[in-house]
Amino acid sequence: MTHPPLVLRLLEALRRLPGVGPKSAQRMAFHLLERDREGALRLSLALQEALEGVGRCRRCHNLSEGELCPICSNERRDGQVVCVVESPADVQALEQSTGFQGRYFVLGGHLSPLDGVGPDELGLEQLAAQVAEGEVQEVIIATNPTVEGEATAHYISELLAASGARITRLAHGVPLGGELEYVDSGTLSRAFHGRREVQ
Amino acid sequence: MTHPPLVLRLLEALRRLPGVGPKSAQRMAFHLLERDREGALRLSLALQEALEGVGRCRRCHNLSEGELCPICSNERRDGQVVCVVESPADVQALEQSTGFQGRYFVLGGHLSPLDGVGPDELGLEQLAAQVAEGEVQEVIIATNPTVEGEATAHYISELLAASGARITRLAHGVPLGGELEYVDSGTLSRAFHGRREVQ
Repeated sequence: MTHPPLVLRLLEALRRLPGVGPKSAQRMAFHLLERDREGALRLSLALQEALEGVGRCRRCHNLSEGELCPICSNERRDGQVVCVVESPADVQALEQSTGFQGRYFVLGGHLSPLDGVGPDELGLEQLAAQVAEGEVQEVIIATNPTVEGEATAHYISELLAASGARITRLAHGVPLGGELEYVDSGTLSRAFHGRREVQ
Repeated sequence: MTHPPLVLRLLEALRRLPGVGPKSAQRMAFHLLERDREGALRLSLALQEALEGVGRCRRCHNLSEGELCPICSNERRDGQVVCVVESPADVQALEQSTGFQGRYFVLGGHLSPLDGVGPDELGLEQLAAQVAEGEVQEVIIATNPTVEGEATAHYISELLAASGARITRLAHGVPLGGELEYVDSGTLSRAFHGRREVQ
């Protein structure tokens, strides 16, 4: 005996979520069907509405309900600085912590040839075109400090090298609040060799 | 700047899933909207269809598309033995591993007065009524070996004490494949005092 077919289909659909395996999918499905049918209905509607109403910003490719996202349509943001990030979550994180007043460009991932993600999928051509228009003075590459993120950052810096814009990268170093003893050697080495004069 | 309202609503709906916090909800939402819109649509439809098509079996309260689930409507299952479990997942687990040929009764949780889950919510009255009909010879209580599961098992055994049916409980002991050294003391004590003659 297995579950009813409709439950099986729900389990399958839940398993497509990142980080959800067979056991969590089962837990979620039973929770929704046994304890929180209202939550299940809400989720179903929220998914549908988001699919219909949320697209990408024409300029920065961030998720947006309008053709231009609130940041790109905000006249007071500085169009001379563009920060390139992998995902909308990164925009959120930078907005909350840096006071950055420029614009963003959301890649929606990183270069990953094996998964079929090349420069086209990340919209790098549009990024290059925007920089080539001449307004942009600095491109801050804020891809993740992972192997793939670094490779993507390298590719972008090469791509934009001839544009005349300043290309920068987030600083590497020891994270605040950590203990040196537990910092990985790559980070420690970067922090050591990138040491700064005390002001 | 925060996310578009429709994305916020999706994040909220995802957070109602068990085990999903703000970060995972964000990861799921972006994954669905950026990389797997087809998966999002499927999930939305699967939820809707399951909500419409999946109810509970009239007899055992397991999830079922029909009024009676396949186990309850199977004439060859033994109606003299009823196994009481907390969730449909437990039915699945027992079916896969025990060869049990009786029927089940799914509580849909355990007694938890603080969460407003009492005997009524678990359908214990119906269970008692079914046992009182006289066909049932043995009730196997297979609630989880947790504090709440044990309390629920205790309550059920008291409730059915006068019914004349044999009330049994899953055996406690050391799990197969483990090392004694790592078995918790409660389990070890139960296994020791419940030791059996070698056949």
